[in-house]
Amino acid sequence: MELLEKRILEDGEVYPGDILKVSGFLNHQMDIDLLKEMGLEWKRRFADAGVNKILTIEASGIGIACIAALEFGCPVVFAKKSKSLNLGKDVYCTKVESFTHKNVSDVIVDRRYLGPEDRILIIDDFLANGKALEGLMDLIHQAGATLCGIGIAIEKGFQGAGDRFRAKGIRLESLAIVDKMDGEKGTVTFR
Amino acid sequence: MELLEKRILEDGEVYPGDILKVSGFLNHQMDIDLLKEMGLEWKRRFADAGVNKILTIEASGIGIACIAALEFGCPVVFAKKSKSLNLGKDVYCTKVESFTHKNVSDVIVDRRYLGPEDRILIIDDFLANGKALEGLMDLIHQAGATLCGIGIAIEKGFQGAGDRFRAKGIRLESLAIVDKMDGEKGTVTFR
Repeated sequence: MELLEKRILEDGEVYPGDILKVSGFLNHQMDIDLLKEMGLEWKRRFADAGVNKILTIEASGIGIACIAALEFGCPVVFAKKSKSLNLGKDVYCTKVESFTHKNVSDVIVDRRYLGPEDRILIIDDFLANGKALEGLMDLIHQAGATLCGIGIAIEKGFQGAGDRFRAKGIRLESLAIVDKMDGEKGTVTFR
Repeated sequence: MELLEKRILEDGEVYPGDILKVSGFLNHQMDIDLLKEMGLEWKRRFADAGVNKILTIEASGIGIACIAALEFGCPVVFAKKSKSLNLGKDVYCTKVESFTHKNVSDVIVDRRYLGPEDRILIIDDFLANGKALEGLMDLIHQAGATLCGIGIAIEKGFQGAGDRFRAKGIRLESLAIVDKMDGEKGTVTFR
C-alpha cells in the first residue's frame, strides 16, 4: 500500500537491531485518516472472505482493528495480556513471547466472545517473528472458530514468519512488507 | 445517552463490590456500531470546543477514542503504561493507581506527541475514582497543552470523582452515569 510505505519512509525511525518505530502515526500517536485508508484496503483485499469478527491483541492493534471493523461492519475482540495467576475456566488462554519485551505473557479471550460461529480476521500492527499471531491462531483453534485471514500493517519480511504462514496456505495481507533495514543509514527497503 | 444505558441494562453484569462489567460490548468485545453512535454523541456535545487531538490511555480507551476521532477529524494519542525503569527524557511521565489492579503504574506520553498547540479531548471508557483522569490531566499540564473536555462512556457517579471535576469547571460529559448499583440484585440505576 503506497500511502503506508510513503509514510514509513517519511516518518518512520530506523534504529540498529532491526528496530522500526512508527509511533508518530501508527502505535502511540495514531493518524486516523491513515487508519481509515488502511481499513478500506483490508476490506478490498478480504471482501469475499466472509469475515464476521475481527480479533486483535492489546494494545497497539486495537485502534487499527476498530477502524477496520467499521468497513467490515463487525465487532472487534481484543485478546488481553493477563497478569492474573488465577485465570479460571471462563477464558481461552495461550502463551505469547514478546519480541520487544523479551518476556512471556498469558494472553486470554473470554470464551463467550469467540466460538465456532465466528469467522475471524486477525488484525495487528506488526508482524515480526510471528509469536503473537501464533498465539491468536491458537485461541481461534481452541474456540473452534474459523480463521479467514490476517491483515498486518507492517511485516518485517526479512524475519521470514510471514512467508512461513503463507506457505501453510494462510491468507495473509500485509500493507507494507519491509525486506531490508539499515540501522546505520536509517533506510528501509520494501518488497 | 439512552442507547448506552439500554445496552448496560441488557448486557452489563453487576457484581458485589460495585463491579460493573461491560466486556461484551465495550472493553473486551467491542460493538463498533455502538462506538460509532458514542463518537457522534461526543462530537455533538463538544462540537464548539475546538478539539484538535484526542488523548486516551491503554488499553480499553483506545477503541472508543479512535472511533470518536473519526468524527472530530483529529489524531489520537494513547498514554502507555510503562514497565520500563529507564524512561529517559523523551517522555512525559505520571503515576496512576489502578482501581482494578490495586497497583501503581508509570504512564507516559512521548514529548513529541503532546505540546502547547494541542487542544485535548480526553476519552476513556470508565470514570471510577478519577485516578486515571488525574494522570492524563497531569500529562497535559506538563506538556503545556489545553484541556478542552473529557468524554467518558460510563461514570460511576456514586464515587464522586465526576462531580469533583465538574465543580472545578472541567467540561466532563459522561454518556451514562450510574448512581446506584446493587450487586446482590444485579441492578443498576442511572442519574
